[in-house]
Amino acid sequence: MTERHIVQRKRNRGQYDFEALCAVLDDTIVCHVGFVQDGEPVVIPMLYARDGRDLLLHGSVASRLLGELAKGIPVCVTVTHIDGLVLAASVFDHSVNYRSAVIFGKAHEIEDPDEKARIFDHMVEYMIPGRTKEARPANHKETAATTVLRLSIDSFSVKQRKGPAGPVDAGDPKNVWTGVISLSTHCGPPQTEQDPGQVPDYISDYRLDADRLNRRKS
Amino acid sequence: MTERHIVQRKRNRGQYDFEALCAVLDDTIVCHVGFVQDGEPVVIPMLYARDGRDLLLHGSVASRLLGELAKGIPVCVTVTHIDGLVLAASVFDHSVNYRSAVIFGKAHEIEDPDEKARIFDHMVEYMIPGRTKEARPANHKETAATTVLRLSIDSFSVKQRKGPAGPVDAGDPKNVWTGVISLSTHCGPPQTEQDPGQVPDYISDYRLDADRLNRRKS
Repeated sequence: MTERHIVQRKRNRGQYDFEALCAVLDDTIVCHVGFVQDGEPVVIPMLYARDGRDLLLHGSVASRLLGELAKGIPVCVTVTHIDGLVLAASVFDHSVNYRSAVIFGKAHEIEDPDEKARIFDHMVEYMIPGRTKEARPANHKETAATTVLRLSIDSFSVKQRKGPAGPVDAGDPKNVWTGVISLSTHCGPPQTEQDPGQVPDYISDYRLDADRLNRRKS
Repeated sequence: MTERHIVQRKRNRGQYDFEALCAVLDDTIVCHVGFVQDGEPVVIPMLYARDGRDLLLHGSVASRLLGELAKGIPVCVTVTHIDGLVLAASVFDHSVNYRSAVIFGKAHEIEDPDEKARIFDHMVEYMIPGRTKEARPANHKETAATTVLRLSIDSFSVKQRKGPAGPVDAGDPKNVWTGVISLSTHCGPPQTEQDPGQVPDYISDYRLDADRLNRRKS
């Protein structure tokens, strides 16, 4: 891990173990992919699936972005959760509880149609465990329309803040409410034009968190 | 707006009016800031507040990132909402409902202590309307410890997908559940070590959405 990847500020908030990285990655499905185009930065949101120590990305073969990334250029992928607003007695001490992962790596394109179809399955299963038992797998026409990239995680850092607001300083007002407003991703009831009685458990019980992958295994 | 900022893929999903941009920006408080460092991309999550047609960013004066951005280098700021998972009969047709804004601009540093203190207030008020009626404003020691950046939005694009899954294709299985699992940001009950009876309305009623700014005005 090079110096660039060491959390510089608030070093006690930095973590570099892979388990901490997975906890951040597996808790959502959207990342922000940064790359350099004509010397300038571009940041695009993309869906991803983790596959062991790699990230899988995909998009249309017509996408400029995917074409750039497939060249193996340096990429920075960042995933962030905002877990709460931290309200302190002073404006300055306000903060947020968060978890973020910053990954540096390079992507390469997967070209074999069968491997691409397997990756499609993996991506859908990563996002919605149980789904590939029902949905039709991709055919070769569909894999040919899609660029699939495998991004090796060359280096990463994980950073977080959690916990309550700090104590009220001596000079600060005592009668101000201090504490945390927690934030989380909520799943609404499944919306369908079908008979709602037919909703499978893996959909009605769905939650977008890292535990969805464990619930699938059990 | 240069060619780079035109949504290339799924052009019917692109929007370029400022109102559409505000709707995406005001619905959250975290963005992903991309810039080029030593020729390589870096993407960092940051809190922001919109101030008219600018974004306000801040961080410690010790932050390398803020120091880089303060030089006025090109920056790409991206904000993304995932509003739902779209489940189709085929793996290939799975999608997400989302809204995203990609902004290109340059930042400059705000140095006047009083203006910095006003920006602190604006940022906290943007994130938690009503808060600055209670919390102590920043003093000069605190503003001196903080780099404040104003980023002019030079160009932007907004992209979204919304609505149900597409119709089931003739060749796809008919007995697969199709529909949308909606996702939203949920605020838990305020957590404090104070007497819960003292929670002000602007905290107990807090929701992290664009409407919080209208609720403040009313």
